[in-house]
Amino acid sequence: MIDPRLIDELIVPFLREDIGFVDLTSTIMIDADATAAFDVNAREDIVISGVDVAVAVFRRCEPDCKTDVRVQDGDHVKAGAVLIRVTGKARGILTAERTALNILQHLSGVATLTAQYIKEIEGTGAQLVDTRKTTPGLRALEKHAVRCGGGRNHRLALDSGVLIKDNHIAVAGGLTAAIARAKSQVPTLTKVQVECDTLDQVREAVEAGADSLLLDNMEPDTMREAAAIVSGRILLEASGGITLETIRAKAESGVDLISTGKITQSAPAVDIGLDEVAD
Amino acid sequence: MIDPRLIDELIVPFLREDIGFVDLTSTIMIDADATAAFDVNAREDIVISGVDVAVAVFRRCEPDCKTDVRVQDGDHVKAGAVLIRVTGKARGILTAERTALNILQHLSGVATLTAQYIKEIEGTGAQLVDTRKTTPGLRALEKHAVRCGGGRNHRLALDSGVLIKDNHIAVAGGLTAAIARAKSQVPTLTKVQVECDTLDQVREAVEAGADSLLLDNMEPDTMREAAAIVSGRILLEASGGITLETIRAKAESGVDLISTGKITQSAPAVDIGLDEVAD
Amino acid sequence: MIDPRLIDELIVPFLREDIGFVDLTSTIMIDADATAAFDVNAREDIVISGVDVAVAVFRRCEPDCKTDVRVQDGDHVKAGAVLIRVTGKARGILTAERTALNILQHLSGVATLTAQYIKEIEGTGAQLVDTRKTTPGLRALEKHAVRCGGGRNHRLALDSGVLIKDNHIAVAGGLTAAIARAKSQVPTLTKVQVECDTLDQVREAVEAGADSLLLDNMEPDTMREAAAIVSGRILLEASGGITLETIRAKAESGVDLISTGKITQSAPAVDIGLDEVAD
Amino acid sequence: MIDPRLIDELIVPFLREDIGFVDLTSTIMIDADATAAFDVNAREDIVISGVDVAVAVFRRCEPDCKTDVRVQDGDHVKAGAVLIRVTGKARGILTAERTALNILQHLSGVATLTAQYIKEIEGTGAQLVDTRKTTPGLRALEKHAVRCGGGRNHRLALDSGVLIKDNHIAVAGGLTAAIARAKSQVPTLTKVQVECDTLDQVREAVEAGADSLLLDNMEPDTMREAAAIVSGRILLEASGGITLETIRAKAESGVDLISTGKITQSAPAVDIGLDEVAD
Amino acid sequence: MIDPRLIDELIVPFLREDIGFVDLTSTIMIDADATAAFDVNAREDIVISGVDVAVAVFRRCEPDCKTDVRVQDGDHVKAGAVLIRVTGKARGILTAERTALNILQHLSGVATLTAQYIKEIEGTGAQLVDTRKTTPGLRALEKHAVRCGGGRNHRLALDSGVLIKDNHIAVAGGLTAAIARAKSQVPTLTKVQVECDTLDQVREAVEAGADSLLLDNMEPDTMREAAAIVSGRILLEASGGITLETIRAKAESGVDLISTGKITQSAPAVDIGLDEVAD
Amino acid sequence: MIDPRLIDELIVPFLREDIGFVDLTSTIMIDADATAAFDVNAREDIVISGVDVAVAVFRRCEPDCKTDVRVQDGDHVKAGAVLIRVTGKARGILTAERTALNILQHLSGVATLTAQYIKEIEGTGAQLVDTRKTTPGLRALEKHAVRCGGGRNHRLALDSGVLIKDNHIAVAGGLTAAIARAKSQVPTLTKVQVECDTLDQVREAVEAGADSLLLDNMEPDTMREAAAIVSGRILLEASGGITLETIRAKAESGVDLISTGKITQSAPAVDIGLDEVAD
Repeated sequence: MIDPRLIDELIVPFLREDIGFVDLTSTIMIDADATAAFDVNAREDIVISGVDVAVAVFRRCEPDCKTDVRVQDGDHVKAGAVLIRVTGKARGILTAERTALNILQHLSGVATLTAQYIKEIEGTGAQLVDTRKTTPGLRALEKHAVRCGGGRNHRLALDSGVLIKDNHIAVAGGLTAAIARAKSQVPTLTKVQVECDTLDQVREAVEAGADSLLLDNMEPDTMREAAAIVSGRILLEASGGITLETIRAKAESGVDLISTGKITQSAPAVDIGLDEVAD
Repeated sequence: MIDPRLIDELIVPFLREDIGFVDLTSTIMIDADATAAFDVNAREDIVISGVDVAVAVFRRCEPDCKTDVRVQDGDHVKAGAVLIRVTGKARGILTAERTALNILQHLSGVATLTAQYIKEIEGTGAQLVDTRKTTPGLRALEKHAVRCGGGRNHRLALDSGVLIKDNHIAVAGGLTAAIARAKSQVPTLTKVQVECDTLDQVREAVEAGADSLLLDNMEPDTMREAAAIVSGRILLEASGGITLETIRAKAESGVDLISTGKITQSAPAVDIGLDEVAD
Repeated sequence: MIDPRLIDELIVPFLREDIGFVDLTSTIMIDADATAAFDVNAREDIVISGVDVAVAVFRRCEPDCKTDVRVQDGDHVKAGAVLIRVTGKARGILTAERTALNILQHLSGVATLTAQYIKEIEGTGAQLVDTRKTTPGLRALEKHAVRCGGGRNHRLALDSGVLIKDNHIAVAGGLTAAIARAKSQVPTLTKVQVECDTLDQVREAVEAGADSLLLDNMEPDTMREAAAIVSGRILLEASGGITLETIRAKAESGVDLISTGKITQSAPAVDIGLDEVAD
Repeated sequence: MIDPRLIDELIVPFLREDIGFVDLTSTIMIDADATAAFDVNAREDIVISGVDVAVAVFRRCEPDCKTDVRVQDGDHVKAGAVLIRVTGKARGILTAERTALNILQHLSGVATLTAQYIKEIEGTGAQLVDTRKTTPGLRALEKHAVRCGGGRNHRLALDSGVLIKDNHIAVAGGLTAAIARAKSQVPTLTKVQVECDTLDQVREAVEAGADSLLLDNMEPDTMREAAAIVSGRILLEASGGITLETIRAKAESGVDLISTGKITQSAPAVDIGLDEVAD
Repeated sequence: MIDPRLIDELIVPFLREDIGFVDLTSTIMIDADATAAFDVNAREDIVISGVDVAVAVFRRCEPDCKTDVRVQDGDHVKAGAVLIRVTGKARGILTAERTALNILQHLSGVATLTAQYIKEIEGTGAQLVDTRKTTPGLRALEKHAVRCGGGRNHRLALDSGVLIKDNHIAVAGGLTAAIARAKSQVPTLTKVQVECDTLDQVREAVEAGADSLLLDNMEPDTMREAAAIVSGRILLEASGGITLETIRAKAESGVDLISTGKITQSAPAVDIGLDEVAD
Repeated sequence: MIDPRLIDELIVPFLREDIGFVDLTSTIMIDADATAAFDVNAREDIVISGVDVAVAVFRRCEPDCKTDVRVQDGDHVKAGAVLIRVTGKARGILTAERTALNILQHLSGVATLTAQYIKEIEGTGAQLVDTRKTTPGLRALEKHAVRCGGGRNHRLALDSGVLIKDNHIAVAGGLTAAIARAKSQVPTLTKVQVECDTLDQVREAVEAGADSLLLDNMEPDTMREAAAIVSGRILLEASGGITLETIRAKAESGVDLISTGKITQSAPAVDIGLDEVAD
């Protein structure tokens, strides 16, 4: 779920940012024709995301390198696992190292944290979804990482979904009118979601043809009633105050989706390193 | 410590990424000439970073908006503090909201975590420095955020410093030869740092004219001896295994700098929101 | 329904393409400080689209010009109507002329043709929608122009909708399985549309939870049966062989949407010119 | 007559525009390693233009695909003709489909309409030329398509020709002075064309050394006299009110060139499709 | 003769190149609100070129600065002359300094050297023209600088002129055939120039309708004969071996144009500095 | 010392600038499948710089060409030496010719002039360094060329060094305070250089921990005293009034570095040409 051409376009400025005019150390200290093999290793148990991006970074810095990819995005691996063996001219591979690892560590961090949340809601029928709370410049990559961790994506950008909130309802003259306005104007394959605070709003929104409801910071019991009202006709999403501790109770309320920005905004980088392979 | 022109250049693709072709919700649901005032609020105690970037985002989306900035980068604020009051056309301001907040939440997260580390080493004389372990595309912004939190910057990119490691020493035929090679070729205002594993290496590196030493994963006691050898002539940096728990012991060993990628790679986003100001 | 920032970004390469290094004629033949007023005139009856883009082009070429906008996008105007009066330095305004007119003529051409189709289906309850058959580089502008003409937008890009076709069904092992696969993986505010050739497929697709059906080149009578089956639960779209002659019959079959690439791909430019205003 | 490197540069944003973050349908519904063969087919009689661009689009989306090109730009082909057979991974080829076809349909549309105009003036000695009335972003491609249809190009951009009009003559203090001003300042391989309304102006312009004359909306009989005055010394171009009905009379007046924006601005897309090749 | 919008587009990467992430010195050493006035001074006698570009650089770095421009491009000024007084925040002005001066020093260097060549050929009737031997990235600016020095421009790029050489003649089957091929295919406002080595070629080229002739490394006496043959019908250009010593003899041979790459490729930078204005 | 990826990124706009929409001459006059071999020849004695860039230009214009590189950057070659033999389709190679030569001629010009300065200071122990007085857009390439000629690089950009001048000292409240301010804020691998006018300043700066001193326009005798004061502890750089005549006296004063902008700003292009290889 990540456009291969987009990867190629994204990594050009990433590398320029890290290299500047030239990698002084590699250029000065490493002979141009010295070759070596390096392993990209997991140094803790993680869920993998970003292998294709890392490979693209190595290939851009050492076009003739051989990349032996041993895992794929979404794999759960143990500490010590080799993700990629890169063989070729050492100079280019070392220039690529930091950028490749920065991407892998961040995306696998997102995937790993997502998987932890997913584990908490196993068996509940609820799915975990992301938000637009992503790192600027990394939207596509982080949304992909969420999927690697077992989550699903909410709208990708402001042009791929409508989310009606309180102030919109006020402007439109009521919830039903707001939904009508949105549904008559959105692109025909785009859904209209409505944020609901009360069960009355839930009833009105379903009646008015909303495609999805967002229950923000609602109590599990109220959500359970909302789920009963909706009874599977449209997607019900819970958000607000989601933590590893609170998520199961929310998930058991019968909502379809639980969303949190934490999995993209607050995922710690996981430990992945590059080590030269001894001859 | 952030180029104002760079801010303007960075936010263009950030906004394009979040908007896509058009902000469907704001365009459909909000009248083009409706105006409102919004407060950007801290929802927890944080160290601020990114106010200028957020302001630039709001201005790009609503060129005529008034931005009343009430804090500045580096300020420690309490939950509830208003950072910026933005007044103008609601449509553009709401289009800007998520991108502005994503940046503020991430950069202030970096600054806040940095400040926590700094607090641990208060009084030791050691400074906290960052690394090249930054989020791709955000190098300049994150390095700025580290400074907002009280930290200092290590090299900005591969072209602004040389870091000699084991394999370079092997290729050059010894530590002294490696340092000589680097010092004769680097730009004249760029320092040469050497990673040292033993005290013998420390002695040789100082003798050979290294500008700085990196002690990676060295025990505090050994670092204390290294500091005695160097005796303030050049900067001594400790890295590896730095956590909020371990940092003070490392700092008390007499090193000048302690570096960690955690402050940029693993800083959770802080809670900052946008609220409409009631009339 | 067009992002103002996107307009600014699009016109930079448009102007560079038309100017090259320099507008030789204006620079050589017109004094740098000569001022004049010019009217952008409709020379036939048209539906307007692109006024904001044209204004942005004039402003970029003559930052100090005054633009008196007398119509707005979506207006139906008669031949002779003044759309914009531009007053300022003649040199910059004339450099902008061709690019501004090329955009206005094309987008208003799309809007005008769209309105002609719309007129044919008046009273039927069906809406006209566009497709991804747009001019490369102009997707956002042309989709906007369709709306100016009274049409609606289908998905904006490949990331904002799923359209299941025959070969997908074969791969997935049946229509129901294909829909299930898509619905479990799409972003949660994105709809899944299925192309149906037979009424059996229509029944199966509705049952399986498709969000919309595409009836490609289906006879009006069959479409009428399909509409009866669906009975308003999801959007029904007809496509294929749509012309000004055939569209009404299709629209009267009870479908919700009729799509055609002609309105974006084959709309002739309308006649709009720039004339100096006599003193 | 189209720079191969420019093609590669143009298609990157074209594909980004159509794909967005990811081609949801192909990624979800088609296995990553499924291969297939597809034919790009003409579905009506057309003149071909854009084959190299389409091939570049397929190659960018499926770098390993085989493209068997069976026609070349400028060929007149019958409905049913196979233009290109593309064999490779189905996912990438289908992602490329719409962008490749949009370009081919538009450029071949321009070439086909150009050829229709050319046919009308066969045997007259006049050549058909284009204008700067092109689609923003597609100048180079459309000018190429005009040549595929048998036409010739007028100036490519504002920096590759001077066109003196009435208001320039007024500013310069007369036609002769205007021409002198232009000829002394243009790059030395660039021609100066003058728009003439009367035969007196024709005489004065030729005398003053104009490189070409533009007769705008002049009657055929007057043009015939102009041709007699010029008697082949410089290029004579007729423009204004050119249609398939009026063009022959204009062409028979003895002018060298007849220009119209219709061939680039108002060419309907031709019908070209992509079909999977049955095994 | 330089597109103002192009200036704005060019200086963005120029400044990014010189600043990198941040101007460390100005940011650290100068208070953000300190203001000052600076003069851009000529430190030798020069011909000015690039004032608008320098002003744009200062404005981009200090948007609120006041720029009092006291000369214009093409002016011959004495050592000590103030070109621009810039008043505003010192930090931004000093960040701009080097880039602004680098441009002014280079372009004024080109203009000054051009003027020296022009002086040598005064009264001969020949004009000095540039070539495509320009600094990559600076084509438009250097061609402008040549004009500031009194020279004229040859073709701007490969798309704005045809230059037929020996090998083209061989391929086409003779000089006349080569000219015919070119003239039938070039854009209609573009000239075809032919390189001639002999007087026979000169005769044949004029007869075949060449728009201009290039006499490369021809002796003055032979050029005189060529000029007699052509007798003013088309432009005659001499190139090769042009120096300040040889140019007058070439110019007196009766050619219209003398071209040399030296004025753009080998012009030493002139001395221009920035000095703070004492209160 | 030049990032290979940066070369690829730089040459794209360089070629677009020289080609525009299309290379008219090569496209019209040379058959698409004609092949030939060409030699890039030195036409005077030069120091080579830019071979990799030239090769990249040829390869971008003729992806299938064979490039036989016979020299490497930094080589001193005699007039007549073949630098590169390029074999392939003539059309693309000739399109590349001017851009490839423009780069080679300029960079080798910089390297050759640098080598002339270097020769003057042979045996003195001083090194020649460049400045930020480079051609906008060519910083990385020119800094590389200086190294090819035997010189060294000063700071690459404003973010890779601090240079404290008079006005900074005034603001900071003295030289010692200024140095302290800078050293506490610069990135830890970046040096702080101080411009000194007097020996007292030299003493204070060394004491205060400056990493390098810049002696601007100082007399050789005074510089000799400065060198004695510094006695090798930090780098001493002389600048101002450096010419081929004056440089040796400055170098013999005991400074480590002598800097001049002339080698990058005022290096005449050297004579390098492209000749077809006879069969």
